[in-house]
Amino acid sequence: MRIVVANVNTTESVTEAIRQQAAKSAAPGTEVLAVTPRFGPASVEGNFESYLAAVAVMDRVQAVEETFDAVVLAGFGEHGKEGLAELFDVPVVDITEAAAHVACLLGRRFSVVTSLRRTIGQIEDRLALAGLRSRCASVRATDTPVLDLEDDLERTGERIVEEVAQAVEVDRAEVICLGCAGMAGLAERVQAEVGVPVVDGVTAAVGLAETLVRLDLSTSKVGSWARPLPKNITGWPFSGRGPANGG
Amino acid sequence: MRIVVANVNTTESVTEAIRQQAAKSAAPGTEVLAVTPRFGPASVEGNFESYLAAVAVMDRVQAVEETFDAVVLAGFGEHGKEGLAELFDVPVVDITEAAAHVACLLGRRFSVVTSLRRTIGQIEDRLALAGLRSRCASVRATDTPVLDLEDDLERTGERIVEEVAQAVEVDRAEVICLGCAGMAGLAERVQAEVGVPVVDGVTAAVGLAETLVRLDLSTSKVGSWARPLPKNITGWPFSGRGPANGG
Amino acid sequence: MRIVVANVNTTESVTEAIRQQAAKSAAPGTEVLAVTPRFGPASVEGNFESYLAAVAVMDRVQAVEETFDAVVLAGFGEHGKEGLAELFDVPVVDITEAAAHVACLLGRRFSVVTSLRRTIGQIEDRLALAGLRSRCASVRATDTPVLDLEDDLERTGERIVEEVAQAVEVDRAEVICLGCAGMAGLAERVQAEVGVPVVDGVTAAVGLAETLVRLDLSTSKVGSWARPLPKNITGWPFSGRGPANGG
Amino acid sequence: MRIVVANVNTTESVTEAIRQQAAKSAAPGTEVLAVTPRFGPASVEGNFESYLAAVAVMDRVQAVEETFDAVVLAGFGEHGKEGLAELFDVPVVDITEAAAHVACLLGRRFSVVTSLRRTIGQIEDRLALAGLRSRCASVRATDTPVLDLEDDLERTGERIVEEVAQAVEVDRAEVICLGCAGMAGLAERVQAEVGVPVVDGVTAAVGLAETLVRLDLSTSKVGSWARPLPKNITGWPFSGRGPANGG
Amino acid sequence: MRIVVANVNTTESVTEAIRQQAAKSAAPGTEVLAVTPRFGPASVEGNFESYLAAVAVMDRVQAVEETFDAVVLAGFGEHGKEGLAELFDVPVVDITEAAAHVACLLGRRFSVVTSLRRTIGQIEDRLALAGLRSRCASVRATDTPVLDLEDDLERTGERIVEEVAQAVEVDRAEVICLGCAGMAGLAERVQAEVGVPVVDGVTAAVGLAETLVRLDLSTSKVGSWARPLPKNITGWPFSGRGPANGG
Amino acid sequence: MRIVVANVNTTESVTEAIRQQAAKSAAPGTEVLAVTPRFGPASVEGNFESYLAAVAVMDRVQAVEETFDAVVLAGFGEHGKEGLAELFDVPVVDITEAAAHVACLLGRRFSVVTSLRRTIGQIEDRLALAGLRSRCASVRATDTPVLDLEDDLERTGERIVEEVAQAVEVDRAEVICLGCAGMAGLAERVQAEVGVPVVDGVTAAVGLAETLVRLDLSTSKVGSWARPLPKNITGWPFSGRGPANGG
Repeated sequence: MRIVVANVNTTESVTEAIRQQAAKSAAPGTEVLAVTPRFGPASVEGNFESYLAAVAVMDRVQAVEETFDAVVLAGFGEHGKEGLAELFDVPVVDITEAAAHVACLLGRRFSVVTSLRRTIGQIEDRLALAGLRSRCASVRATDTPVLDLEDDLERTGERIVEEVAQAVEVDRAEVICLGCAGMAGLAERVQAEVGVPVVDGVTAAVGLAETLVRLDLSTSKVGSWARPLPKNITGWPFSGRGPANGG
Repeated sequence: MRIVVANVNTTESVTEAIRQQAAKSAAPGTEVLAVTPRFGPASVEGNFESYLAAVAVMDRVQAVEETFDAVVLAGFGEHGKEGLAELFDVPVVDITEAAAHVACLLGRRFSVVTSLRRTIGQIEDRLALAGLRSRCASVRATDTPVLDLEDDLERTGERIVEEVAQAVEVDRAEVICLGCAGMAGLAERVQAEVGVPVVDGVTAAVGLAETLVRLDLSTSKVGSWARPLPKNITGWPFSGRGPANGG
Repeated sequence: MRIVVANVNTTESVTEAIRQQAAKSAAPGTEVLAVTPRFGPASVEGNFESYLAAVAVMDRVQAVEETFDAVVLAGFGEHGKEGLAELFDVPVVDITEAAAHVACLLGRRFSVVTSLRRTIGQIEDRLALAGLRSRCASVRATDTPVLDLEDDLERTGERIVEEVAQAVEVDRAEVICLGCAGMAGLAERVQAEVGVPVVDGVTAAVGLAETLVRLDLSTSKVGSWARPLPKNITGWPFSGRGPANGG
Repeated sequence: MRIVVANVNTTESVTEAIRQQAAKSAAPGTEVLAVTPRFGPASVEGNFESYLAAVAVMDRVQAVEETFDAVVLAGFGEHGKEGLAELFDVPVVDITEAAAHVACLLGRRFSVVTSLRRTIGQIEDRLALAGLRSRCASVRATDTPVLDLEDDLERTGERIVEEVAQAVEVDRAEVICLGCAGMAGLAERVQAEVGVPVVDGVTAAVGLAETLVRLDLSTSKVGSWARPLPKNITGWPFSGRGPANGG
Repeated sequence: MRIVVANVNTTESVTEAIRQQAAKSAAPGTEVLAVTPRFGPASVEGNFESYLAAVAVMDRVQAVEETFDAVVLAGFGEHGKEGLAELFDVPVVDITEAAAHVACLLGRRFSVVTSLRRTIGQIEDRLALAGLRSRCASVRATDTPVLDLEDDLERTGERIVEEVAQAVEVDRAEVICLGCAGMAGLAERVQAEVGVPVVDGVTAAVGLAETLVRLDLSTSKVGSWARPLPKNITGWPFSGRGPANGG
Repeated sequence: MRIVVANVNTTESVTEAIRQQAAKSAAPGTEVLAVTPRFGPASVEGNFESYLAAVAVMDRVQAVEETFDAVVLAGFGEHGKEGLAELFDVPVVDITEAAAHVACLLGRRFSVVTSLRRTIGQIEDRLALAGLRSRCASVRATDTPVLDLEDDLERTGERIVEEVAQAVEVDRAEVICLGCAGMAGLAERVQAEVGVPVVDGVTAAVGLAETLVRLDLSTSKVGSWARPLPKNITGWPFSGRGPANGG
């Protein structure tokens, strides 16, 4: 099967990191196709950027030429999942929800550790709409900008471990979700240091997408996420072509 | 003061209807500047279209050349409010939230009557994130497409009155919000027939925006809706110019 | 238009302060009529006093001889709003709810800073019933008795600023509501020092009341806040006269 | 022990019915002292009347000359419990809460059947503030005015049985609370006809009050329901005397 | 009347302590029959043990030869209440729920202080299912194993007092529930030292059970807790005899 | 990998049906080991039976002689998940939670269709504790006893389709979970007839378990589901041997 994994920002190195993370955990026979939006912000750290990225991701996935079996939206706490779910007939899995669903299987309460404090509310909102807030003990931030995470991986790791320790001790978290695609490579280190399961959203989402495909289940087209009605849309798609064949 | 009222779809006649509605209720001295997005769907009836409209509205408001004192997002149940709130320093009022806030002042429970059944979930989600769900008795749909609402105003009015009557009788609603900009002209008729207060989102939003301006209050820039961080954004703004002077 | 603003305690100097606060923010053409209950406590700092004040306010507003277009209940966290809503046909706006509604338009989460710790629960209860609790980050108290607030305005201001800073830093509040009519004069100072929007309930309520009057909207008389049924009531009204002409 | 059971309306025959109901279920050695407010409405069917009754009950209980060990507030869905809790050192039990607490011990979900539809919201609010809403399946009304309940007991009983049957069948209620003091005498009949436990608030409250007294537990004076602060209160108590010796 | 009080662990000295606690507060004429399960853990400090105890308690109560009028499940935060409720026709009262119900009558918010930190979640879950979570300010643990509680009563008391003080100061608790049957003897000491009401679950449950019996109320057999359907059950009851005559 | 799938009742034909269902959807290389409890009820249709089954399942899985990589608890709405999670180091997946997690990925709201009405509450409780209630539109019952489901598969299928149609039309469900292991074979038929995705808990749970194993994630041993403390447990395990090597 082929899974399209869509980065939400326009930074190619992040797309590549996400691709590696996804490929590492995919089952044999799963091909990961990582894509980068053709427009939008270099990193997504707020609502304006997140809305823009949502549209850029829809535009980019729509332009995929290969057939595909599932889509993973690889931006933690970002907008756009319901839009993708409407556009395609294959399953769409958001990494925020995927991480939270998997965390719920592993412990009674989970915490999210993300990068910037300003995005805490956005993550809380995504979890709330997904009905996954009640087992979330806290969302904590290291307050490191996304694109600086990789500059000093040592320091980034330390800050994450500090927040994770507080989440476990103070908030009684039993599982941790790393709330930023850029943190993916640190899951093992954090898990080893703190001794609680650490869930990375990208690998969780790929795993869930594989399960859905294998069970032959896809998005309900009755109700909220039905196909868009046929109508005149000015300027769409930005890339000048129609729905992808996966859709 | 000048208030920018942004239609979410690209249909000029809807923009004009919104403009008239807004102007009718505005205080003396308030200028209403109604704008139409430069791209996007002719009507917004689902998440994909709503995300696209969110970006189109941000693009359009950013391009306003006049100074302005407040922005009204005139799409019921649509995405994008938080993005607008980040981009500008003046108050941003969403008509969904405005209608619900005003309804809460008038009765213990309110219902929303909207057009398409598929958008009920989206409206519920917007109310939930706004913390305004607990006094919402129900969201009901007439199941009339937005652009057909005006085709047979008589029949549209009848269907709304039917749903309103059910909302009052079955769901114990005490106030009604008309959940579609296209229904605006029918508020008085419905109120007269059913005998409960009927709130139109556009006039509610303009009224609240005027109040905020008069009280010299605007969006908090501490936390979730702070200005976007300066960064490289590919292809933005679509219209090729920077932030408006109202921002 | 004429708005009756009802102080909840019997201290005339508080009524005068409320009157000035209300008048300062009212639109041109709005006349503020501030009234003081004819019985009840000198300050309201608990449930017993609050229930007594609720009845005293109903008695006092009922006795107003002028016609009026709206009523503002100017006690933060106090009982009685639903009773007033039943008695009159004009809109009734409670300052607790008004402050919270306005705060919701300005940021994702708000905190209330009030005077006495013992009243925190009462304020939480009023917000909960109004369906406005989910965006309330915290209710904090300076633990200064109401009537001492004005004795040392400097110290009162310092204590409020301290609690506001904690609300922003620890509770992630993005907007502050001053939870005591006696704090009204301090809103500007606090806003300047802490850099988040500060909402005063009295001005918020007057603004919302003006909006309702302008939109020709009033309390629903279907359901919870319908007119009281005609019946024998011993000893009421205390002031020996019938319903005011505003009602 | 002596328990003061306070009717909320000024109708002596209701007080007498409450007294009989309370006395029937009280343990040997418990003396029931039923009291009638000295002012207020003949029946309480809305918020205005309920606030007035809250103050009238506080005034009346304060004037009790005998010592007493507990107070029962015998109005279903009415205001005033927290005020009484502040005024006295002995336990105060509200019949709404008492009925709901007892119902929770008997089944997974309970419904309330009350008299007038307009009071449903008030009952829901009392349950919500008491934290007892989540196991409440529904509040239903027969839409019979309180003082008419006794006029045609046969018909009243039939209407209650109809609503109870709906509560069980449609709302999946497993226990019923009779939501009106005037319905007390019908509990046995309804229970016999419908086959689910039927809880009467007055007997539940007397039973809980007896338990608290026997366990030597009373209202916490730390926090929300601490004694009122000493201060000047104009016109209180209405009856011209200080706190009762039970307080 | 006779009340069966079932210890959840197999430690006879704990059963005896529970028996004394129950007997001390029972009304004259109430006989307390304390029983110990015939299998299961020496102390219950987790879910595996709690499920095992649930079945052991059902087995043990089923084997009681005397008639009885009510059952008290004397394990704080433990599983099994709904099973007992199905098996018997007499009322079943769980000490977790009983303590919380009584605490709700005494103050606006209560905290639970229990022994091991690992059981906090289990207690929160029991309260949540019982619909009693919203007035629970916190569940705190002294982190003392159950069977060590009695080893150094002085130190145990100190630790409880420390956590209670934090619950009052930080969590704004107004009432305390002792969340462990082994702490029962300390209620008076803690209440005296901290000045807030302290509720012991065993005495609360016995009191509520007495009230239910006196009011002639028992478990609803319509719905969730109806008698088990007749069917083949391998190996049950463990003790080789049928339902007790109290059932 | 090897996954132990534990039936909750003692009926071997149900175990065999579950085994087939699990095997059908398992990935290549996954071995399904279906086990039947050594004691307990022939079908589980209530709390008493469910608690007994919880212990019987723990006993049976503990006795598995092969190593295994994950455990699936194959009883819809049943007790015991947290106990299994404590006992073993490998992941434990409950079919109720698995079905709900998967359903959340496929639509905005899901309904559960189960067999007996009396178990609706139990299923709601399991979903509530799992934090998965807010997206559950309804739990509906066909009111067919579990062991009769297979007697007339045609009629069973019809009844399920009827309830599913109501769930979609009335409750606005967009996805259906079959709430009874015995219904597993009907998923495809129902999905074909009604046109919404139908999730079977056993296949969902096996898929999620495979994902967890592949991602090398297992139950957190920090907090609620830590290993039981070493202590004296009378009569356990029933089967006379210690923890399995998989644990």
